[in-house]
Amino acid sequence: MGSAFLDPRDVQFWLYDWLGVDALTGHPVYADHSRETFDAILELSARLASDKFATHYKKADRVEPALQDGIVTVIPEIKQALADYAEAGLFAASFDPEHGGLGLPHVIDTASMAHFMAANIATAAYPMLTAANARVLVKFGTAAQIETFALPEIAGTTLGTMCLSEPQAGSSLADVMTRAMPDSGDAHFDDELGPRYRVTGNKMWISGGDHDITGNIIHLVLAKIPGDDGKLPPGTGGITLFIVPKMLADGTRNDISVAGLNHKMGYRGTTNCLLNFGEGGGAIGYRLGAPGQGLAIMFHMMNEARIFVGLGAAALAIRGYRQSLDYARERLQGRPAAAKDPASPQRPIIEHADVKRMLLAQKAYAEGAVSLILYSAHLMDRERVAGDEIERARIASLLGLLTPVAKSWPSEFGLAANDFAIQIHGGYGYTRDFDVEQIYRDNRINPIHEGTHGIQGIDLLGRKILRDKGASLAGLGPEIAETVSKASAIEDLRGLATRLNLAWAQVNAVVETLITLNDPGRALDNASGFLSAFGHVVVAWLWLDQATTIHGDAEINRAFREGKLRACRYFIEVELPKIEPQLGIVAALNDVAATMPEEAF
Amino acid sequence: MGSAFLDPRDVQFWLYDWLGVDALTGHPVYADHSRETFDAILELSARLASDKFATHYKKADRVEPALQDGIVTVIPEIKQALADYAEAGLFAASFDPEHGGLGLPHVIDTASMAHFMAANIATAAYPMLTAANARVLVKFGTAAQIETFALPEIAGTTLGTMCLSEPQAGSSLADVMTRAMPDSGDAHFDDELGPRYRVTGNKMWISGGDHDITGNIIHLVLAKIPGDDGKLPPGTGGITLFIVPKMLADGTRNDISVAGLNHKMGYRGTTNCLLNFGEGGGAIGYRLGAPGQGLAIMFHMMNEARIFVGLGAAALAIRGYRQSLDYARERLQGRPAAAKDPASPQRPIIEHADVKRMLLAQKAYAEGAVSLILYSAHLMDRERVAGDEIERARIASLLGLLTPVAKSWPSEFGLAANDFAIQIHGGYGYTRDFDVEQIYRDNRINPIHEGTHGIQGIDLLGRKILRDKGASLAGLGPEIAETVSKASAIEDLRGLATRLNLAWAQVNAVVETLITLNDPGRALDNASGFLSAFGHVVVAWLWLDQATTIHGDAEINRAFREGKLRACRYFIEVELPKIEPQLGIVAALNDVAATMPEEAF
Repeated sequence: MGSAFLDPRDVQFWLYDWLGVDALTGHPVYADHSRETFDAILELSARLASDKFATHYKKADRVEPALQDGIVTVIPEIKQALADYAEAGLFAASFDPEHGGLGLPHVIDTASMAHFMAANIATAAYPMLTAANARVLVKFGTAAQIETFALPEIAGTTLGTMCLSEPQAGSSLADVMTRAMPDSGDAHFDDELGPRYRVTGNKMWISGGDHDITGNIIHLVLAKIPGDDGKLPPGTGGITLFIVPKMLADGTRNDISVAGLNHKMGYRGTTNCLLNFGEGGGAIGYRLGAPGQGLAIMFHMMNEARIFVGLGAAALAIRGYRQSLDYARERLQGRPAAAKDPASPQRPIIEHADVKRMLLAQKAYAEGAVSLILYSAHLMDRERVAGDEIERARIASLLGLLTPVAKSWPSEFGLAANDFAIQIHGGYGYTRDFDVEQIYRDNRINPIHEGTHGIQGIDLLGRKILRDKGASLAGLGPEIAETVSKASAIEDLRGLATRLNLAWAQVNAVVETLITLNDPGRALDNASGFLSAFGHVVVAWLWLDQATTIHGDAEINRAFREGKLRACRYFIEVELPKIEPQLGIVAALNDVAATMPEEAF
Repeated sequence: MGSAFLDPRDVQFWLYDWLGVDALTGHPVYADHSRETFDAILELSARLASDKFATHYKKADRVEPALQDGIVTVIPEIKQALADYAEAGLFAASFDPEHGGLGLPHVIDTASMAHFMAANIATAAYPMLTAANARVLVKFGTAAQIETFALPEIAGTTLGTMCLSEPQAGSSLADVMTRAMPDSGDAHFDDELGPRYRVTGNKMWISGGDHDITGNIIHLVLAKIPGDDGKLPPGTGGITLFIVPKMLADGTRNDISVAGLNHKMGYRGTTNCLLNFGEGGGAIGYRLGAPGQGLAIMFHMMNEARIFVGLGAAALAIRGYRQSLDYARERLQGRPAAAKDPASPQRPIIEHADVKRMLLAQKAYAEGAVSLILYSAHLMDRERVAGDEIERARIASLLGLLTPVAKSWPSEFGLAANDFAIQIHGGYGYTRDFDVEQIYRDNRINPIHEGTHGIQGIDLLGRKILRDKGASLAGLGPEIAETVSKASAIEDLRGLATRLNLAWAQVNAVVETLITLNDPGRALDNASGFLSAFGHVVVAWLWLDQATTIHGDAEINRAFREGKLRACRYFIEVELPKIEPQLGIVAALNDVAATMPEEAF
């Protein structure tokens, strides 16, 4: 295993040859940057990820966070790695200079983060959550809230969390029972940090919920403000967002206690806590935004976190691919079918067709997933620099459509890639002497957290596609058509373009069928299958688009070019046909599962 | 979670209603048995599995086997459980009374073992391996070898292993380097226990290779006898099998040392060792069978072990299904689409369509997998009681064809089922507070050991199908045709029968294409995909066959019947169509992966 978890050629190809992100520097917002400043950040990230994050990957799995006497501790290497990350200015990477940031595009911040997630996803999760938290504060907070809570996060001296789930309300946020009462205690309701409340309730699955990495932690907490009758308003419309710091301005601890640590399958370096707010009378919290706007605001953080969940899954897929590739090149075992003479020396297992298949599938999944994430992150930047509101709305709609795919597709197929990485290692892959079993365990959370696969399916098919009767979906059409058109002009890619075009037509036909049937309940019965199939079409499109870019590039390394073209061909020839039976089930409104009587299980 | 890991109604249905195994008692071999003696064994197994095996499931994962000063120790609960298992006579279940056995059919022994594997697969692996080892000794050993080595195994006072892999030769047995020299030392070459050799070499991945459960361990070791030139014969034809006991008859230790323990992702209660034979001059081993016959003999043990690997994967699938079903019935979360009033109480998650989908998929995979294994085990009994040699050869051919499927299909789809079991539990499924993450980890070895998925694919498509130009495959045709014919006579099943018939025709068309092309090298490039698709057709057939059995059964519990019919419908409507793109790749001899230049990865 080399020191680089990502191939630098990939990163250069994605960012510059394919996406052309250097064009962003032509916009005033990014005018201080250049390809050189981008590359400096990426090289720094690669080095720091390798030297400071990868080095405690296994130790953090073996030595889990501990809770003793109400205090959560993690191994010191995590604290040191994050201090180095802060010192390098990386917490600040994507924030504007006015907030102490480096003013980098999201797509560069995302490519930087890919290195850290590949090296050590559990340690990387702290800055990922903290940046998403700070972004919400910067966007919706008052000047005092930004100054007090966001700037230390951007500096990396304080970490942040998102507190949504509760023991009785995991995915069902409408059922949040944490309550916030206007504070009529020892201070004014209108504190300088905003309207002040006392928060009481229990929050479950809080990543980074407590630790000894930084002195303070900024929790963003969903709660409900009781009505005059003392009852909590029903539904998600009654949810408000509060800033609840672990430490108060006067240096005392806020009324938050750690009720327990979850002991996880993987991803262990990230503490995961059950937090009790307000057991001593009420934790002090400052309202962020207006009452009832909590979920809408939180979704800004959630959408960013969803893309980074996809990134983490994709980065782990890349790592598993590259580690199993190294193994397959080194491990001698047997002989390929064409050279069966048992007296001849054993050959590297990369020569076996089935090992090649598992490597190429991993390459197609892993690199496809990263390109999906970088494309999505680039949309965030393109939205910002859009020339007019129509263009901005068009890009925002496309990003909204792709967000559930960016979260779920890498989670599903990154895990499938990691499964192949284990399989290529044979028995060794099942031992803790190699990394791949941990990579799989670390990755297994991704289809669950920040909205399960099932919830993303409903988001995509219900909220993003059927609700506006296919309008957002139609916005993707011209993008795919442009790629198909470019690819059709290249003889080697023409057949693949035809297949993609057909697949896109199949997706549209299914959606039209569902719109015509106008039975959203039943349409969503098979939303998960639709999500997987739709993701395949999106990734096939991105692969073909990259193939059109690389096909004519004579300067690029020949083997690198061949690898990209093969992965594209594999994805479209071998993977894309899998959507047909999946879409068939959706279009037929197959109800064999949905109408199953409960007692028949 | 109730105490039963298998639903007793399932076991009764499979054995009696569907397979009609009680008919075996009409044959002299099983004349001492009856449905009552079968049921007594199954009830005993259910109770013992629950009371003695399940109880240390988590502890054996947490407290791994330890190696200190050359001694391997396991938690005492494993020793106690196996002592109880031995006392109940279960090591002896499937052996003939002349060898101290209970003379039960394989299918009953297999159903018994399913309970133990569901309850604690790592503890159950010891008797599974021991019985397979003893079966080889009984079949190929001399009277003295049987007396000395097999009978203690059948009594459960000694455990057994299979020693094939070596560090430099995992799947490639042709490259075995362990050597056996005729013993010209302190004893005659012709010991009463057989021709005596000195064995030297290193054996890797030895399950149960050492432990403190029993005083002795019987290793069956593949080795090569050097030629006159001192060189080992190349290829698998030069392999011979040796009985190498841990303890010698005089009570001294044989020359075998434990060089290391593998620390695994799961399945931890089964010790997994690197054994060094003969570091002190040569471990004493007794030849079993003739020189050069080692692999052929070992394959009797291997084929039995392969079916039991499939059983283990299937049993873990059942356990994950039932545990996630219990969870889905109890866990309140959100409301189904049709009842979205947020003021209404939350509903059990089993009411969500996507949870139902994941439950029904698990049921179809898990119960389909167990039925595949029981069908295969019953073939072993049917082979024994066959009326004539033609019938016996026909059944043996069918069993040979199904063995790679019985090993691989449950391993692949049992794991997919366990993935759904985790997903249904949400965040809880990712914690060690519930069992499902361990179930997944325990199950992940099954696509690797006793021949990887890739090797099973080559065995199925190459050795079992193409080598005899489809003759074995043709033997399955009448079985499927009979099921299709029965199902076609039932209106509710007619459509499903048509689909199965079509799928079977597709399989045959692909095989004909491959035979016509006559390019075995390229044909095998996509053997893994063929294996998965072929397994789906086999399981669809078994589901439809069970549906025809249960459809007309008015006495059977209504919900139970509905569950079976739904699972059949799900499997044929939702799963079976997935074979089309897979078979398409095989038939097209798609070479995108196989011809990928190595440097392009």
